[in-house]
Amino acid sequence: MNTTQLTVLAIKYMREAKKESLQTVLEELHPYDLAELYRALPEKHHFRFLTYLTSKQIADLLMELEQEIQMEVLHKLGIEKSSKVMDIMDNDDLADMLSEISEEKLEEYLSAMHKDESKSVQQLMSYPPETAGGIMTNEFVWIRDYYSVREAVDKFKTFAGLTRNIYYLYVIDENKKLVGVVSYRDLLLADLNEKIEDIMFSRVLSVPIEMDQEEVAQLIQRYDFLAVPVVDEKNVLKGIVTVDDVIDVFIEEANEDIEKLSASGKSIDFSTKATTASFRRLPWLILLLFIGLITGSILDGFEQTLSQVVALIFFMPMIAGMTGNTGTQSLAVVVRGLVTNTLEKRTILKLVWREFKVGTMIGITCGLLVFTVASIWQGDLVFGMIVGISLLITLIIGTMAGTIIPLILYRIGIDPAVASGPLITTLNDIFSLLIYFGIATTFLHLLI
Amino acid sequence: MNTTQLTVLAIKYMREAKKESLQTVLEELHPYDLAELYRALPEKHHFRFLTYLTSKQIADLLMELEQEIQMEVLHKLGIEKSSKVMDIMDNDDLADMLSEISEEKLEEYLSAMHKDESKSVQQLMSYPPETAGGIMTNEFVWIRDYYSVREAVDKFKTFAGLTRNIYYLYVIDENKKLVGVVSYRDLLLADLNEKIEDIMFSRVLSVPIEMDQEEVAQLIQRYDFLAVPVVDEKNVLKGIVTVDDVIDVFIEEANEDIEKLSASGKSIDFSTKATTASFRRLPWLILLLFIGLITGSILDGFEQTLSQVVALIFFMPMIAGMTGNTGTQSLAVVVRGLVTNTLEKRTILKLVWREFKVGTMIGITCGLLVFTVASIWQGDLVFGMIVGISLLITLIIGTMAGTIIPLILYRIGIDPAVASGPLITTLNDIFSLLIYFGIATTFLHLLI
Repeated sequence: MNTTQLTVLAIKYMREAKKESLQTVLEELHPYDLAELYRALPEKHHFRFLTYLTSKQIADLLMELEQEIQMEVLHKLGIEKSSKVMDIMDNDDLADMLSEISEEKLEEYLSAMHKDESKSVQQLMSYPPETAGGIMTNEFVWIRDYYSVREAVDKFKTFAGLTRNIYYLYVIDENKKLVGVVSYRDLLLADLNEKIEDIMFSRVLSVPIEMDQEEVAQLIQRYDFLAVPVVDEKNVLKGIVTVDDVIDVFIEEANEDIEKLSASGKSIDFSTKATTASFRRLPWLILLLFIGLITGSILDGFEQTLSQVVALIFFMPMIAGMTGNTGTQSLAVVVRGLVTNTLEKRTILKLVWREFKVGTMIGITCGLLVFTVASIWQGDLVFGMIVGISLLITLIIGTMAGTIIPLILYRIGIDPAVASGPLITTLNDIFSLLIYFGIATTFLHLLI
Repeated sequence: MNTTQLTVLAIKYMREAKKESLQTVLEELHPYDLAELYRALPEKHHFRFLTYLTSKQIADLLMELEQEIQMEVLHKLGIEKSSKVMDIMDNDDLADMLSEISEEKLEEYLSAMHKDESKSVQQLMSYPPETAGGIMTNEFVWIRDYYSVREAVDKFKTFAGLTRNIYYLYVIDENKKLVGVVSYRDLLLADLNEKIEDIMFSRVLSVPIEMDQEEVAQLIQRYDFLAVPVVDEKNVLKGIVTVDDVIDVFIEEANEDIEKLSASGKSIDFSTKATTASFRRLPWLILLLFIGLITGSILDGFEQTLSQVVALIFFMPMIAGMTGNTGTQSLAVVVRGLVTNTLEKRTILKLVWREFKVGTMIGITCGLLVFTVASIWQGDLVFGMIVGISLLITLIIGTMAGTIIPLILYRIGIDPAVASGPLITTLNDIFSLLIYFGIATTFLHLLI
């Protein structure tokens, strides 16, 4: 059954007030499908639909929805029902949701919640969003190293409701310091009477609570972990980051890279409103507009050359465009490379040298091609030389700019977002026109 | 200890022939770190280093290395040792590695391997690479529904060596059809005497063997699964795709999106050779070069207008650049949106309408700005109007081109790679110059 069919069926059952029939359908749905259904339902049915759901189902639904719709749901539920639902939600998702709520509303919700749930989520909310602390959950089961496997399994059975997405039990000592890890798999393979300290893996890798989420994600990806424990400066276990959150981090980071490359402004997706999208895109565009005007004013300085050989203009879009294209290509290689590579001096030098060679090879090939075309078109070998040599030089410079600018920014700790695709393209426009018309002006006497 | 320190230590131990000291260090390393060490070692030490590793360690190493270095390692090992190592490798990684080897070499390796291993990997190699079959492993543990939990755990204990990255046991019937799934967690929580059919989850989601890897990845991400079973058309269980492979798919797909947006050519990373990188980038660049020349030849048609009002040229880079920028922004939104959205008619119409509004708002803002600047700069209101109105129109068209072209390509099943960023930028160049000089020529009599 696809979403449209589901929607029709849900509306039918609501119209006929068949609560139980609707529940039978809903029980079959994964949280993701439930959220798809909610989004597809016309707004006038939302309130009634929510009254047909169990608290558990509303919690599942909320954890899948984007913040705008979450707020709508909370509003429809009211404080009391909302806090009941919040008690059931996973703490990390709850903390993300609450981070968008106004101060006073937040107080209301928190005070209506269970005391320990509310305390635990407030603690999570205190960590910066894009760090290990910001994406971890603090609902996990810990065991002690002197437990037997039987005791560990018993404790696990008691608290299993809390550990939906966690695949390891973490072992701590009397000071709550992390000393080891045992996977569900280890527990299954062990004898019930064995001691945890004998079967646990004690060289457990953990991450500091303030580590950047991208680094956490890299670590989990490199080592194929399902989860990684998060500790404070005293090695006290504070929480767990799980692999499903890491997938979201990778998608988020890839989107950010693409936003940088296209200067398309922060987080615009299919459901962003037109005015919001415009406001997010405009700052970049206005900056680029003025840079474009500066480029144009450079031409002002070459007015004499231009009016003497108008044909020079015909090759301007091609030269500027090609320099921009090759710069964007290099930029893409660098930005994506940073996702999986650690930047050491050796790597940087190798990369810059490689790109220089690439720029030269591309420059020679394209320069020769254009030399031929331009010479034939304009019937003038000198003219062909000017265009061909200009292209060779601008392609090398364009490649270098696309490689070095983001590397420098990254190295000195500035977000390479500043080196976004259109910005490099626009800078390359300036370089290329200066070089092209500079060379042309120098050899002008040979042309006329 | 970082990679450089490790490298120095490894070379020291090799020089002193201290095999055991080196082993003590190596045992502490995760496969990822082992691969980092191998890459950092100067090539002359590679052979000796390999002789110091156990077969298991070489298998771990191979599974982390990129194909170029894998081939080098196999060559150094020789057929006999290589096939011993291959017997230990995970089948999915092995199949990927072998897919790059020449036909005759492959025969040699396969015939030196264990019969069932070789048969099993050959089967995996028969599936296309970017499908569920291409990324799945066929080493998994199945159980029957009439087993007790105790029997299931016993079977798991026997075959545990095979199931490194799998977190569920799959339940099949007498025809090997998939009928349910049990997680390690379920097994831990259950009583040993319970029947599998009573604790298994029978509405198990599976994917067909030919499903595109991107869809498989989306499914795992949406439902927060750790693995998903792969079945053939008769619902017979054929293999498992695990979450660690899915992370790699997301990174791969994001890289592909960025390659499309920047037309930077297939899979160029930090270690690609300069000539290879040039050859991969050149086809696009040469195509774009000719489109750029066509753009230039358009200007040829407006030669008279140009020579009469040279100042028109000053605004050409800005107008062409801005149209390209806004097109790239829209393109990025569409390409990334396709990662997490399903394209229904409703979604498409909403998106196109949204982007039209965005284009108009951006166009009006930037048009007014440029009108002001151009009027003051050139001291001519009509001139300002021509530039401002041209920008308004080209921005709307640029936004629309960046939205509609990739959507159409996607809809009719052509890879939107064709609608790469530079291509849209170049097309927008043509549109914008035609509009700009068209408008200018129409109102030329008012200017001079």
